[in-house]
Amino acid sequence: MADTKETIVEGVEALTLNGKPDAEPVETGTDAQAQEGATAPTEDVVDPWNVASSNDAGVDYDKLIKRFGSSKIDEELIARFEKITGKPAHHFIRRGMFFSHRDLHTILTLREQGKPFYLYTGRGPSSGSLHVGHLVPFIMTKWLQETFDVPLVIQLTDDEKTLWKDLKVEDAIKLGRENAKDIVAMGFDVNKTFIFNNLEFVGKCPAMYQNIIRIQKCVTFNQVKGIFGFGDSDIIGKIGFPAAQAAPAISSTFPFIFGNKKVHCLIPCAIDQDPYFRMTRDVAPRLGYPKCALMHSTFFPALQGAKTKMSASDQNSAVYLTDTPKQIKNKINKYAFSGGRVTVEEHRKLGGVPEVDVSYQLLKFFLEDDAKLEEVRVAYSKGEMLTGEIKKLAVETLTPIVEQHQAARKLITDEVLDKYFELRPLQFGS
Amino acid sequence: MADTKETIVEGVEALTLNGKPDAEPVETGTDAQAQEGATAPTEDVVDPWNVASSNDAGVDYDKLIKRFGSSKIDEELIARFEKITGKPAHHFIRRGMFFSHRDLHTILTLREQGKPFYLYTGRGPSSGSLHVGHLVPFIMTKWLQETFDVPLVIQLTDDEKTLWKDLKVEDAIKLGRENAKDIVAMGFDVNKTFIFNNLEFVGKCPAMYQNIIRIQKCVTFNQVKGIFGFGDSDIIGKIGFPAAQAAPAISSTFPFIFGNKKVHCLIPCAIDQDPYFRMTRDVAPRLGYPKCALMHSTFFPALQGAKTKMSASDQNSAVYLTDTPKQIKNKINKYAFSGGRVTVEEHRKLGGVPEVDVSYQLLKFFLEDDAKLEEVRVAYSKGEMLTGEIKKLAVETLTPIVEQHQAARKLITDEVLDKYFELRPLQFGS
Repeated sequence: MADTKETIVEGVEALTLNGKPDAEPVETGTDAQAQEGATAPTEDVVDPWNVASSNDAGVDYDKLIKRFGSSKIDEELIARFEKITGKPAHHFIRRGMFFSHRDLHTILTLREQGKPFYLYTGRGPSSGSLHVGHLVPFIMTKWLQETFDVPLVIQLTDDEKTLWKDLKVEDAIKLGRENAKDIVAMGFDVNKTFIFNNLEFVGKCPAMYQNIIRIQKCVTFNQVKGIFGFGDSDIIGKIGFPAAQAAPAISSTFPFIFGNKKVHCLIPCAIDQDPYFRMTRDVAPRLGYPKCALMHSTFFPALQGAKTKMSASDQNSAVYLTDTPKQIKNKINKYAFSGGRVTVEEHRKLGGVPEVDVSYQLLKFFLEDDAKLEEVRVAYSKGEMLTGEIKKLAVETLTPIVEQHQAARKLITDEVLDKYFELRPLQFGS
Repeated sequence: MADTKETIVEGVEALTLNGKPDAEPVETGTDAQAQEGATAPTEDVVDPWNVASSNDAGVDYDKLIKRFGSSKIDEELIARFEKITGKPAHHFIRRGMFFSHRDLHTILTLREQGKPFYLYTGRGPSSGSLHVGHLVPFIMTKWLQETFDVPLVIQLTDDEKTLWKDLKVEDAIKLGRENAKDIVAMGFDVNKTFIFNNLEFVGKCPAMYQNIIRIQKCVTFNQVKGIFGFGDSDIIGKIGFPAAQAAPAISSTFPFIFGNKKVHCLIPCAIDQDPYFRMTRDVAPRLGYPKCALMHSTFFPALQGAKTKMSASDQNSAVYLTDTPKQIKNKINKYAFSGGRVTVEEHRKLGGVPEVDVSYQLLKFFLEDDAKLEEVRVAYSKGEMLTGEIKKLAVETLTPIVEQHQAARKLITDEVLDKYFELRPLQFGS
């Protein structure tokens, strides 16, 4: 599974960047920095390996909802969510970073009825160092786990990365373990969280391979061709892989957690992973299991903004979890795409464009205080706040998050990590 | 893996039978029973799921050797084999039932040099009851194991049968276990033999899944399309499966047996399985492993002879290992295709045609006494021996084999069976 931003940072070679999540259409005539000639309004490309938009404002998420056939997380759903959970929805939900869903109402109804469900998310370990965008699905998932008090399974698709990249089995396993340390450092409850990497887990749990085979029996090459765009010259590993990402959405894959109970599953993930789960939702009922529910996030912005190609080898395209405070400051000051005007005078007069300003986008993700964020938005839009000031706030917001992560990660020994990987029953809260 | 005859009995619906292994071309003008109008000399179809010949004499094995690019097991090779093993070659080899090979010279050279190798064979468990033809690859393998004193791994491809047939995972596992009892009943040395079924073994041995992924990374859909004839409407499980049959030919799939040693592998199997191992031989060197060597058998004849469609649901197409002596006698008398003449008078005058006579073919497989077999061939060809007499000899030859098998199988308890399935080191003889 590739999660938010992963898609962008680690995607295929021909990747074109979308770095403007949740952006409003940019008004014609704005002179926001780096805005270059308009391109033809062709359809955005969004699949697990490609995210490309010809639109300067990045992917059109409303169109994507229509195209994918998912549903918008709207005010009504958020209200129901808050009513049932008895607390305000996470700011990722309120601010539209988790903007789309499938069957979230079903999950809420299960909760109302006191029936169980579990969470499933994952990561494709293609590099040892994560950036702050990689935290997004895990922050959401952790909040959901705490809010609903449910078990969580986290899949590291080291098999996928071996198949898609110039990466050996052994190295993919190592990267997965490094990534898992970052995930565990976020504070998941070990009694309710199971982490597994396919290249080892399949070899420890016969139910996983059996479900992979069951799923692979339900899906033709024509179907994966249509869903994922596979072609005749693709390796057979890629063609079979979607079943490995689908299997954890079927509770019988984890007999040590769920016994033979057919438990519903909710998957928080970036919208580019939806094709896997559209396939899974098609197959699950044929195997006698409920369709998984989904919550989709937007993509995390590259520092350079939309239409800039991000690259795993370009350490300057994102704030990494290993960055020092100085590096964070330099990166944001130097690279964070600005929605400000060319001169201070013009900025004071016309105001900045927060919708395309990467520092503002970072604040939307990481500044929890709603009032403060709105204050920034208004001040920046009016030209009262300058680019240097909004960048400073972004640096001040991200630096302690990264520092805290580094401190927490230091405590994750192999012994601590191994506990999360152990096949065992998980605690169901309610 | 489908083994001898399995192909014929259990193949796809459109299967046309080849029931005349090793047959000489039938002379024009012979009036051997049931010989119907000549068909156009098109190419034989031989792949793991189809065996079809438009030729009344069945598959042309010499042509197959040329088409597959394998080598004939010729007199010279047999002489070298006998010299190195210090004993006469098995009658399956001497009589041409194992007629083709790849790199058998390499295996003999390894033996000369005192270097290790192992044997690998298998079975696709699509039905609970085996027939005598199913014994062939295992008789050969057991003899090779005893002759060379080497470890043996036996794969039950219950995953393949789940994918290809209307068979549930649970039922395929059960059938595999039933088949394994028949295999174990043949007397394999438990200290040197490991039996595994994919649907459970993959979930017990991470190295297996890791090698499947490594192999699936080396093979494109175009390649399996060319090798196996897969199409766009095939399920992705079929497309990925060849890697599961290939993996056991790579010694690192069994770290508990071979550690990290790169050990050569010899695979006795029916020629229809060659496509899997052509693929494997292409991939193995890319993974740093030697190419597997092969010994190919002809197909086992259906009682009804060539061009008759065998079917798993037709208990009359073969002598089953569960048949009573009375059933064996009735089946052979009633159904075994005869190479005899229409009247006794004509038979005495013109002689029978052993090459198309199923009773004679059965004797070639199961009558070990060379002198006796030659006597039969001559007498039958000359018309001195009648159809009823050769059928009687076939009954007398098969009945004790089936009876002994039944007695041995009764002793195979679940406990005995489990020992073969246990992941453990195997004893290397020399």
